[in-house]
Amino acid sequence: MQKYPIRQGIPGFKFAALQAGIKKDNGLDVGLIISDRPCAVAGVVTRNSVKAAPVLDCSKKINRGVARAILVNSGNANACTGEKGLQATDSTCAALATQLDIKKQWVLPCSTGVIGVPLPEGKIIDALPDLITAATSSQAAGFAESILTTDTCTKTISVREKINGHYVHVCGIAKGSGMIMPNMATMLAFIITDADIDASLLRTMLREENELSFNRICVDGDMSTNDTVLAMASGKSGISIKRNSKRYAPFRAMLRRVMQELALMIVKDGEGATKLLRINVSSARTDADAKKAAMQVARSCLVKTAFFGEDFNWGRIIAAVGQSGAACKPERISMHFNTILAVCDGQAVPGNQKRLAQIMKKKEIKINIDLANGTKSCEVLTCDLSYDYIKINADYTT
Amino acid sequence: MQKYPIRQGIPGFKFAALQAGIKKDNGLDVGLIISDRPCAVAGVVTRNSVKAAPVLDCSKKINRGVARAILVNSGNANACTGEKGLQATDSTCAALATQLDIKKQWVLPCSTGVIGVPLPEGKIIDALPDLITAATSSQAAGFAESILTTDTCTKTISVREKINGHYVHVCGIAKGSGMIMPNMATMLAFIITDADIDASLLRTMLREENELSFNRICVDGDMSTNDTVLAMASGKSGISIKRNSKRYAPFRAMLRRVMQELALMIVKDGEGATKLLRINVSSARTDADAKKAAMQVARSCLVKTAFFGEDFNWGRIIAAVGQSGAACKPERISMHFNTILAVCDGQAVPGNQKRLAQIMKKKEIKINIDLANGTKSCEVLTCDLSYDYIKINADYTT
Repeated sequence: MQKYPIRQGIPGFKFAALQAGIKKDNGLDVGLIISDRPCAVAGVVTRNSVKAAPVLDCSKKINRGVARAILVNSGNANACTGEKGLQATDSTCAALATQLDIKKQWVLPCSTGVIGVPLPEGKIIDALPDLITAATSSQAAGFAESILTTDTCTKTISVREKINGHYVHVCGIAKGSGMIMPNMATMLAFIITDADIDASLLRTMLREENELSFNRICVDGDMSTNDTVLAMASGKSGISIKRNSKRYAPFRAMLRRVMQELALMIVKDGEGATKLLRINVSSARTDADAKKAAMQVARSCLVKTAFFGEDFNWGRIIAAVGQSGAACKPERISMHFNTILAVCDGQAVPGNQKRLAQIMKKKEIKINIDLANGTKSCEVLTCDLSYDYIKINADYTT
Repeated sequence: MQKYPIRQGIPGFKFAALQAGIKKDNGLDVGLIISDRPCAVAGVVTRNSVKAAPVLDCSKKINRGVARAILVNSGNANACTGEKGLQATDSTCAALATQLDIKKQWVLPCSTGVIGVPLPEGKIIDALPDLITAATSSQAAGFAESILTTDTCTKTISVREKINGHYVHVCGIAKGSGMIMPNMATMLAFIITDADIDASLLRTMLREENELSFNRICVDGDMSTNDTVLAMASGKSGISIKRNSKRYAPFRAMLRRVMQELALMIVKDGEGATKLLRINVSSARTDADAKKAAMQVARSCLVKTAFFGEDFNWGRIIAAVGQSGAACKPERISMHFNTILAVCDGQAVPGNQKRLAQIMKKKEIKINIDLANGTKSCEVLTCDLSYDYIKINADYTT
């Protein structure tokens, strides 16, 4: 598998982005991905029972298993906008479909931004002719920029691998400043490939890999109304991927790498984040125990604030493990901070203070929490909680 | 029911506090409550599976239903201290019992403060003779101060009511700066009364009232290893309280008021809090739905930060309701901010901006979230999330 520059795109896909005037700060705010042929499609959307209009629309279309275009706007989430919000989503998709001469149900809509404000659908529709004209295979970076909100950087990765003598490409583009933004939690991710995969297998792979990537990151524990992960497979490479073929493993490895690297980029760009924390719980009784313990530590305000303060505060970590409900005995828990054994049998290891103080200053810290209670493990990525998180989320006025 | 000054105490109870040198800042750090006779006792302790040594010891003793003294230290939580921690707790209780000539199992221990540091039991034991000598009926305020950690004020309330011609007293003393402190989440509450109640009824009442008071507050969502609520009933008033007697209702009202006022004081003194938020969810399908929706809103970092920024950000509230899993349809949700209808049928009500901006500036805001989905309701008290929360919890160095 090799990484390659995103500007090289993927054969058969075009990208475009432009400024339609939806964002207050006048950046790029409408983006488009088009495939030159119908693609198999799969998706995972937020479990929040309050779902934005485009999420509801996407969910229905994904069930049909076929799509050709993804239309995204930033600056407005089109959430809590009622029947009018659904109509606005529908009319933008319909306008794009007409101009591309494709079926309306082949257009997948996504929105991210302010909640509860009517979507300025006219601005999007007016922008479509220029957007379609501008679409080229080399504009993925522009698309990546057009979907950002409080993100400080674009999040893209593209990899390819020769399978049966032909290159197969997988490209990922995401947004999400820690699943949060000034007015609404949001992450979006788009995975496109020229592999030939049927929608059912694509769905299975996407769900399984989503569990190991975007479901293993945590910034503030708030759940979005707009979270959406979409995957499109065009088949243009001519390389067919089936569950029991030899081609399956190398493709799956590409998908995994793309999704995990995007997840990592999202946490690193978490709002106000100064440190990346890898919370690894090992030797848990069950997979569920490992995950709930790691998640509880990852979302604890006290733990995250202590790391911001570079304070070796293992008591808060052990308390969060205890709060999680995971089966454990505190007197058996040990913890490594990077390579240093910091806690053994539920007690701080004496004499490590200087080395631990050095580790606490690092930008990336791996905390391994060994429950000595089984064989299961789980790693969750999180970031610290800083003054800037408060600033970003409090100093915004609707 | 009338409130009266805490310095008047309760007949039959004595209080004491002194400085034993456990706290770094040299404040009062050991406190004692003694009853002149055996009391019925009940308690509720943290559900965290990591429990501090005094919590484990208290739990066993409470099951016997009888106690005469409460011995508290601040500055050290005696949590994650292993077998030695249990021994330290036991030896301090044993020393007090010997000097008071009472049974060891009649002494209930509580600790609050730094986690994972051995309890300096010698300092506590050395302090006991002076502590016992100092004990008087008028020292409740001193006791209330000795149990504080990051709290900015003591939390006490005392009420009495004439029942069958005799005064019955209920006095409450608590600590908890939002269930959190620099090194460990902690709240403690002590309820004492001279009513005559058997331990079984006292336990039932305490659990039910705890559900409506200390289980309805939230500062940062972190759960303590040391949370303990204890109730002692001496019977000295001669007034017996039984479930079906006429005396039950007035006593229960006193207990409720004491516990709810203490809970309110804890939230108001939440770390860094600038606003008290009353999150009331109404018209829910079930009690459980009402509580989980209110709790999810109350613990949302995004909601709490928005209130700190005085930003009318109803979208974050509706997203938190959706995240909670409570049965609801977003297009039916309405919200009042104090008396102003801010959201109706899932949409912001236009034309209220100025009045809402005024409300957002207030120190106390009641947010009523009507799910229009049933008849159940729940109110949870919380506070905003400010720069000072980060400062208090990050700028501390172990």
